[in-house]
Amino acid sequence: MTSAYQQLEAIFSRLHHFSHLASIAGWDQHTMMPAKGNEARSAALAELSVLMHQIVTTSHVDQLIAEAKNETLDAWQQANIREMHRSYQSTVVLPEKLVEAKSLAGARCEHAWRQQRVENNWQGFTKSFKEVVSLSREEAQIRADATGKSCYDALLDLYEPGINSSDLDRIFGDVKQWLPSLLQNAIEKQSQLSIPPITGTFTVEKQRQLSQKVMKLLGFDFDAGRMDVSVHPFCGGVPEDVRITTRYNEDNFLSALMGIIHETGHARYEQNLPRQWLGQPIAHARSTAIHESQSLLFEMQLARGDAFLTLLQPLIIETFGSQPAFDTAHFPYHYRHVKAGLIRIDADEVSYPAHVILRYEIEKQLIEGAIEIEHIPELWDDKMNHYLGVSTQGNYRDGCMQDIHWTDGSFGYFPTYTLGAMYAAQLFNAAHRAIPDLDGKIASGDLSPLFVWLHQNIWQHGSSLDTNALITKATGETLNSRYFQQHLQQRYL
Amino acid sequence: MTSAYQQLEAIFSRLHHFSHLASIAGWDQHTMMPAKGNEARSAALAELSVLMHQIVTTSHVDQLIAEAKNETLDAWQQANIREMHRSYQSTVVLPEKLVEAKSLAGARCEHAWRQQRVENNWQGFTKSFKEVVSLSREEAQIRADATGKSCYDALLDLYEPGINSSDLDRIFGDVKQWLPSLLQNAIEKQSQLSIPPITGTFTVEKQRQLSQKVMKLLGFDFDAGRMDVSVHPFCGGVPEDVRITTRYNEDNFLSALMGIIHETGHARYEQNLPRQWLGQPIAHARSTAIHESQSLLFEMQLARGDAFLTLLQPLIIETFGSQPAFDTAHFPYHYRHVKAGLIRIDADEVSYPAHVILRYEIEKQLIEGAIEIEHIPELWDDKMNHYLGVSTQGNYRDGCMQDIHWTDGSFGYFPTYTLGAMYAAQLFNAAHRAIPDLDGKIASGDLSPLFVWLHQNIWQHGSSLDTNALITKATGETLNSRYFQQHLQQRYL
Repeated sequence: MTSAYQQLEAIFSRLHHFSHLASIAGWDQHTMMPAKGNEARSAALAELSVLMHQIVTTSHVDQLIAEAKNETLDAWQQANIREMHRSYQSTVVLPEKLVEAKSLAGARCEHAWRQQRVENNWQGFTKSFKEVVSLSREEAQIRADATGKSCYDALLDLYEPGINSSDLDRIFGDVKQWLPSLLQNAIEKQSQLSIPPITGTFTVEKQRQLSQKVMKLLGFDFDAGRMDVSVHPFCGGVPEDVRITTRYNEDNFLSALMGIIHETGHARYEQNLPRQWLGQPIAHARSTAIHESQSLLFEMQLARGDAFLTLLQPLIIETFGSQPAFDTAHFPYHYRHVKAGLIRIDADEVSYPAHVILRYEIEKQLIEGAIEIEHIPELWDDKMNHYLGVSTQGNYRDGCMQDIHWTDGSFGYFPTYTLGAMYAAQLFNAAHRAIPDLDGKIASGDLSPLFVWLHQNIWQHGSSLDTNALITKATGETLNSRYFQQHLQQRYL
Repeated sequence: MTSAYQQLEAIFSRLHHFSHLASIAGWDQHTMMPAKGNEARSAALAELSVLMHQIVTTSHVDQLIAEAKNETLDAWQQANIREMHRSYQSTVVLPEKLVEAKSLAGARCEHAWRQQRVENNWQGFTKSFKEVVSLSREEAQIRADATGKSCYDALLDLYEPGINSSDLDRIFGDVKQWLPSLLQNAIEKQSQLSIPPITGTFTVEKQRQLSQKVMKLLGFDFDAGRMDVSVHPFCGGVPEDVRITTRYNEDNFLSALMGIIHETGHARYEQNLPRQWLGQPIAHARSTAIHESQSLLFEMQLARGDAFLTLLQPLIIETFGSQPAFDTAHFPYHYRHVKAGLIRIDADEVSYPAHVILRYEIEKQLIEGAIEIEHIPELWDDKMNHYLGVSTQGNYRDGCMQDIHWTDGSFGYFPTYTLGAMYAAQLFNAAHRAIPDLDGKIASGDLSPLFVWLHQNIWQHGSSLDTNALITKATGETLNSRYFQQHLQQRYL
């Protein structure tokens, strides 16, 4: 007799197989597929997502979960049930028509946005964006009714379970106290330096060779993953076969290199999720912010720190030859240049939280109906002036139209970037306490103690613990943004 | 009210979407996927194939087809129903357990074969091959019972509907009359020539550039397809996004180049199937032999002919520089070298039919139970001696273990190679009659009249006509192997 728990495992294993195909076909769409393949690919992926929604909603998952709770289960199986329940509820609560309408409206809006952004055409954009916002509000209301959360919190919960907007108001409120002056001081301090710029042309082939060396150094398993090129870099694929991407700029190798280190952080998390549980919800990464904490730990905490830069410098010189910018006195500066700019994805780690807080404040009001679309440009400009001292008046392209996230209704995602940066600082601090002379080890090329620590404390747990338990186990406390503040102060002041 | 016909279109459109994902994930598996991804990929693809089998068997396709026959349908819709019926019957007749068992046994045997072939280990191979043969016989018997055909014919019908083994016995019987002497005469004639060999190293990058030029010349649409590298070259993907592959050998560019031209022939057929019907069975390529007729028309009839070689010669010299082997007096010889060898895939077009006939004769007896596995090596050696004058005694690797086809039970496939070569000769002859001065046009680089003719006569028809009707419409008669014989005589004697 098959137990209810075993039946549940079979259902989620089946979903995992289909989600494997969706991931690979999605990766292909962004890296390999020629233009004329898009319509057929989108139709195929839409068919698969309808199928997966139907499997979840018609497999009596709720009944089986209720039965399974009376069965003898170990701690991991119980946690697996908890994650199944979460996944089931978040899927089943939405009517299929709304899922489909939002997916279509999102695809339309994103497609229009690609052109309208280039044309700085806010008026045109609002037409399709209006529908996305309206459907996202509808989704938020349904999720709020089902969970008892506020509308915005109900969306936030999809990315970051366990955090709500009163937490964010407190955390971000604190950041808003100290960030503006820290940013100003960092910029002033750097303005007194005289640093030679990086000059020259850096061929794609050489950048690729360098990237592969660095990825190997960072433990990326090339037998279980690949690195390719896409317009927007991402980490995709499946835990058994992780696909990261980058884009090369022959005038500047730094951005691709740091992007690759970032994606390698995501990749190592995926490549080290609990193998014996792959296919079950418990083997998924814990949350969007914890995922981001791994990429930012690699990119910001580790790779832009003195110890790792000691290791990187000879590789850079070996690849591109030497120049004054690569001298020990100047080299680190290029990885830590602070500037109050317009574009989030180009922002350094000091100004980045301002970009996130601005978006959080606007999207929360938008979802809760406190503002309408037409208020966004003015609010954006006000907040950019206030937080970063720069203006986006009339410049929609580099202002409120710069991101892809809102075009398909991913409201609630932005805060996870800064939560991830905070978790990264807290984890890196804890790793330093746990591992004697960690910086010395890193500088000498021995990164394995750090990776073993991350594996033991984060990667191997998948979703078996909730975020607070995971972070407390690893660091001795729940989220504490002081580590992030201290990190910025130490590095930039 | 949705008509039965419309419901059928919806079912097959859904299957088309899933088959799109299977194709792309399969392509990825052979071109991009790292080793450790294989287990998860195979499980995901197996899940999808179970799903597709279930959709076909549980959607009441037979009832809907019966109803649709009473609805008002145009000629293409009627032909679409015919192809649906064919697809449905060939799927539904097999019990799911047998499909699964054969798929597993095939995967096991193919996997073992990769190593055992290298080790020349026939005894080891027979262990897993035995099961494949046994399941294939079971499948053949079930299909024979359902169709009234003989066991072998029931498998042949999966690849080449409308042809049976009495046709093949007649056609191949004729070939066996004239081929051995033609082959011997061709080899003798060539032995009197003194041709400088092609020497040098041909970098992958230059070969790739040359291939892309040639593919463009041949009309491959790079906005609707790609060319990549795999161990075994193939044409995959979907009609909207055709993926061909090759493998490069830096000591010899000819084999990759001719392989790419071959796959480009397959690709143009796929890229030009009737667009408005894509997703329906009627839009599929007509049959395996007709597909092969397009690749062989490109590779053998067109690309190894004088007119096209006139066009190719300057491209080769432009890419690799000149050498005596590329002089006009010697150049064509390298594309037409005839030799009685052991390996089918390395064979020229004169000796190729002998390899096919040998396999046909053995696999037919094997499926019909007239011989057992242990008889194969001796039969193989006898027939190689008889048809090609070479021995494979004790050399299983280059003898009966050289092909992948039997390892997963694709019995009935081999004959389509030679049928394809015959259709190619017949079609190329008809194109010459229809297009004034076709050779002059080809030599001057104007290939479009040929492609327009192929589009009008083959590509645009999909599966709307049966093979005999298609070939009769295009050439004025059904399959006539004289064109193939004449072609070989004219080119090689």
